[in-house]
Amino acid sequence: MALLDELRLPSDMHRLTQTDLYQLAGEVRTRIIEVVAQNGGHLSSNLGVVELTVALHAAINSPIDKVVWDVGHQSYAHKLLTGRAQNFGTIRQYGGLSGFTKREESVHDPFGAGHAATSLSAALGIAKARDLKGERFVVVAVIGDASISSGEAFEAINNIKSVRGPFIIILNDNEMSISKPVGVLSDHITSVRTNPFYRQTKKEVERLLLNLSHVGKPLVKIIDTLLRRTKHLLINYEKIGVIYEEFGIRYLGPIDATNIAHVMGAIRYAKTSDKPVLLHVLSKKGAGYAPAEEDPTTYHGLGKFDSKTGKETKSNSIITYTEVFGETLLQCAKKDQQIVAISAAMSQGTGLSEFAQAFPERFIDVGISEEHGVTFAGGLATEGLRPVVAIYSTFMQRSFDQIIHDIALQNLPVVFAMDRAGLVGEDGPTHHGVFDLVFMRMIPRLTVMAPKDAEEFRNMLQFALDFTEGPISIRYPRGSVPTNNMPSSPVVFGKSELLIRHKTAKVAVVAIGSMVAPAYEVIVTQNLPVKLINVRFLRPLDHAELRQELAGCEALVSIEEGIKQGGLYSALAELICEEKLAITLTGMGLENTEFYAQGTREQLLRDAGLDMHAIQRTLEKCLGGK
Amino acid sequence: MALLDELRLPSDMHRLTQTDLYQLAGEVRTRIIEVVAQNGGHLSSNLGVVELTVALHAAINSPIDKVVWDVGHQSYAHKLLTGRAQNFGTIRQYGGLSGFTKREESVHDPFGAGHAATSLSAALGIAKARDLKGERFVVVAVIGDASISSGEAFEAINNIKSVRGPFIIILNDNEMSISKPVGVLSDHITSVRTNPFYRQTKKEVERLLLNLSHVGKPLVKIIDTLLRRTKHLLINYEKIGVIYEEFGIRYLGPIDATNIAHVMGAIRYAKTSDKPVLLHVLSKKGAGYAPAEEDPTTYHGLGKFDSKTGKETKSNSIITYTEVFGETLLQCAKKDQQIVAISAAMSQGTGLSEFAQAFPERFIDVGISEEHGVTFAGGLATEGLRPVVAIYSTFMQRSFDQIIHDIALQNLPVVFAMDRAGLVGEDGPTHHGVFDLVFMRMIPRLTVMAPKDAEEFRNMLQFALDFTEGPISIRYPRGSVPTNNMPSSPVVFGKSELLIRHKTAKVAVVAIGSMVAPAYEVIVTQNLPVKLINVRFLRPLDHAELRQELAGCEALVSIEEGIKQGGLYSALAELICEEKLAITLTGMGLENTEFYAQGTREQLLRDAGLDMHAIQRTLEKCLGGK
Repeated sequence: MALLDELRLPSDMHRLTQTDLYQLAGEVRTRIIEVVAQNGGHLSSNLGVVELTVALHAAINSPIDKVVWDVGHQSYAHKLLTGRAQNFGTIRQYGGLSGFTKREESVHDPFGAGHAATSLSAALGIAKARDLKGERFVVVAVIGDASISSGEAFEAINNIKSVRGPFIIILNDNEMSISKPVGVLSDHITSVRTNPFYRQTKKEVERLLLNLSHVGKPLVKIIDTLLRRTKHLLINYEKIGVIYEEFGIRYLGPIDATNIAHVMGAIRYAKTSDKPVLLHVLSKKGAGYAPAEEDPTTYHGLGKFDSKTGKETKSNSIITYTEVFGETLLQCAKKDQQIVAISAAMSQGTGLSEFAQAFPERFIDVGISEEHGVTFAGGLATEGLRPVVAIYSTFMQRSFDQIIHDIALQNLPVVFAMDRAGLVGEDGPTHHGVFDLVFMRMIPRLTVMAPKDAEEFRNMLQFALDFTEGPISIRYPRGSVPTNNMPSSPVVFGKSELLIRHKTAKVAVVAIGSMVAPAYEVIVTQNLPVKLINVRFLRPLDHAELRQELAGCEALVSIEEGIKQGGLYSALAELICEEKLAITLTGMGLENTEFYAQGTREQLLRDAGLDMHAIQRTLEKCLGGK
Repeated sequence: MALLDELRLPSDMHRLTQTDLYQLAGEVRTRIIEVVAQNGGHLSSNLGVVELTVALHAAINSPIDKVVWDVGHQSYAHKLLTGRAQNFGTIRQYGGLSGFTKREESVHDPFGAGHAATSLSAALGIAKARDLKGERFVVVAVIGDASISSGEAFEAINNIKSVRGPFIIILNDNEMSISKPVGVLSDHITSVRTNPFYRQTKKEVERLLLNLSHVGKPLVKIIDTLLRRTKHLLINYEKIGVIYEEFGIRYLGPIDATNIAHVMGAIRYAKTSDKPVLLHVLSKKGAGYAPAEEDPTTYHGLGKFDSKTGKETKSNSIITYTEVFGETLLQCAKKDQQIVAISAAMSQGTGLSEFAQAFPERFIDVGISEEHGVTFAGGLATEGLRPVVAIYSTFMQRSFDQIIHDIALQNLPVVFAMDRAGLVGEDGPTHHGVFDLVFMRMIPRLTVMAPKDAEEFRNMLQFALDFTEGPISIRYPRGSVPTNNMPSSPVVFGKSELLIRHKTAKVAVVAIGSMVAPAYEVIVTQNLPVKLINVRFLRPLDHAELRQELAGCEALVSIEEGIKQGGLYSALAELICEEKLAITLTGMGLENTEFYAQGTREQLLRDAGLDMHAIQRTLEKCLGGK
């Protein structure tokens, strides 16, 4: 790792030869494979942009010039090249480097990310500020072919004409997002690759781009001429180039992302352009690592693996909530023709791959288009179908207005299945699904549920599919279902479940979803004189049952894996005030005063005071100290 | 109103002659002007689509065929023609017809709206359900040139290829949304109008479209040929047609929206198309009513006016929060070069017209692109500017994820100015800004404020602009500022204001924003022994002061113009539980169990129990009955 370890600033790369840059790229690739094998993380997308990133930093001057990476999951090479090689082994670990770009981490990360399609807007803001302040530097946004089809990215492109100085969009076209990209725009982007006209002119373009790496003023004119000519040669230019040129963007490409000289040449040219440039690069997910090249979806984001064989080292014996969801919905869909599933670029992540295969017509992946997906589901519901919208809790935030305006206000029976609700682990603060209990509880006409285990989840999903009175949501966490065999009872609308009865208990626990199992475990194993209520429905809250069960108690503990303020904790505080109960409320949950870090789910739950030890301590304190 | 009053079903129009249809259009126009003059409402946009709507219903068969109107504010003619002529006089009034489309109101409104850019997604959902069920009917979405530039509309267009049967997008191009439309797409749409090639071929196209009104199978082929030819004649086709054709949509137009025969012909042709058709119609806002044609912005949405002179009849002596915002921000911007204002297609509505004139470079209207606008503001903030994002509370819901992910998580000092917070009046449930207190309170690192009157608003805005620790929001209601001269004190971070001291009071009121003035008025005029705390900051909540002031009290009343559950009411319930206060809490505010109706603000506040009478009754009850 001679070159990589010597590098202090990305501008040090300006002195390297082409051969050095390729050597550097090789070192970066090796380091990424080693570390992802150890820590898990995004592999395919990072391997695909190694040479691109080397070329980018060799051609610009960060941090004066600014690069905004969309999502940021593909920024590993960028991190290695911008002073973070020493700490790179800590990536995605507790206390370590983020798996995404992050402002706090480096001046080379001018804007952090995690969710898709924000890079163009942020970069435009940076460029506008630059123009207003009369400064001059280059702003680069790197965005994938799936992200650029998202609504916010389009809004940014539609606002691009406000930019004056150098502005480069690198369209990183790797033919797939996490799953296959969706939509017409992606089709066109892909078609560029496969067109024979492209191959014909490729050689000519390549020859010229080679010269571009030492581009000077006179050459720019020649390039302009060539680009004009190429435009007419490339029939596929019509497919994608025109779309962007219509928005006042100069289209340049397609360029092989692994050819450092070509990419550098194109960027140097783009820096001189008087209007924004879209640089279309073709990358290959997993490039340079055979297992990932062959199966980029599996290697998109993964756990620890053996770097030689590419085999994941995690055990496969656990059953996840995601699997329970996928299997149950598939079974229900076999019996009920009306069921339709909607995913937003996450068919595998939400457990819907089998459903998609079994019912291709009744499975709609809308791409990274959560807004459209929810309103679209509303349209389906008006015609009597039973749409199930499966979106991670954190991404459901994108549909907040649509849930209110299109679904709840019209009282349409749409089922929201929110996976990854709660602390998601290594993806960290951008991805924790900790807000949904609050924002779902606030929306009129919406029923809000969370299951305690696999069986209850199955029952709730079936209940939700049978429920036609209005919209209904189910939230469930990342990871495995509990295995502690809690009692079960039928799901009844608005009814909680008294899980541990205890006539003389002075302490009651009201828990929701993922927090029921650890509470149960503590109370049973420690044999504590505490009653446990599985609330099941955050709304409507089971006032009658709660009032009755809390009547004789002196202490109440609420437990939820989400922001307390506005969630279950607030609901119980309201209940106590309304019923004038003489009971001491202790709220266990997440606070609205902080964003939660990255780490294992276990570590994060411990930090948040939501592990079994914390529950035990709290209950013992309520019971009168020990 | 002979024809209009005879009409029972829109299909009755199928029997009318062209002359009859024009007469009907004239009757519709007259009725709209009369009723909007009486009730206020959207005028310009409705007058622009009268003939279009007549032609549409004459060419399709609603409710079997389904029309989804984007936003729905331009659906007045549609309402008149679909069985609502008798009640049309009640539009936008308490208990009357909605000013937007609404499912509960008519089977001819298959999907309601209010917010922009949802129509294509909803219509695609309806069409997908139709295709899945093997039914056959026509789905039409009517969308304006400003809405179609919004992210969600783009997401829908990118997903359009899933449609099999007849699907028609009518692009209602009236050259402006509420303000001038923004963005490159709009520029291209507009350029079609002004291009000389268009004028050249117009005659040929018109001649053919005329025949189209009685279109048969053989003619379709001729039209196809013509369209192919026209494509090459119309240079502007390159500007807009290509963009949509690239997405698998057949472009047809532009067509004069006031020419009933042409529009009918085009729709009949579009019904036979094997792929989705975009029908580009050119309308003129305010068509047929001189005052509105001359000044369509003023006549976009307005209060009651004199139908002869066009003069608004409302008094102009009141000062609104919107005006205070616009003036104050303008003054601040004169002193501070870093201030930049961002609007999302609402420069006039948010009071920023003068600012835009004074500082054109520092005013950015991003169009109907709330997502982009917020992330863009984040980019500006990273470069040291002071962005102020002025978006109505209800539309800020569109930026929910961006506020969390791009602004709060990165702790960027962006100021959110949320106008129309609370019950907005005649626009009704889609537009009430009743959720923001809850969703803003939940987001870490965000400071949440609301002013009690004009002076406090000025001070808060100045405070927010001076505050660089993180993001900060100010919410304020629609309408005039209070005139009851309440005491004032400097705004200090996280500090509430004890507005009415009363050492021996057993009852305390904690109010926020718009609810402080009526509470003050009641306590002072009725001389009630009640202390009044203006909370000012919902977060951070002034725990210290509240604990101290509530210590000796027996009853506490919270008052807020927003959903209680998760808002101020919850915050105080939490405080009571934390501090174990022996105090009875009564929460006055809106409930999360219902959407609130339309009507005057006064009427709605009365219904919600938030007027002065209700406050007085509640306080008297707390004081021990009378």
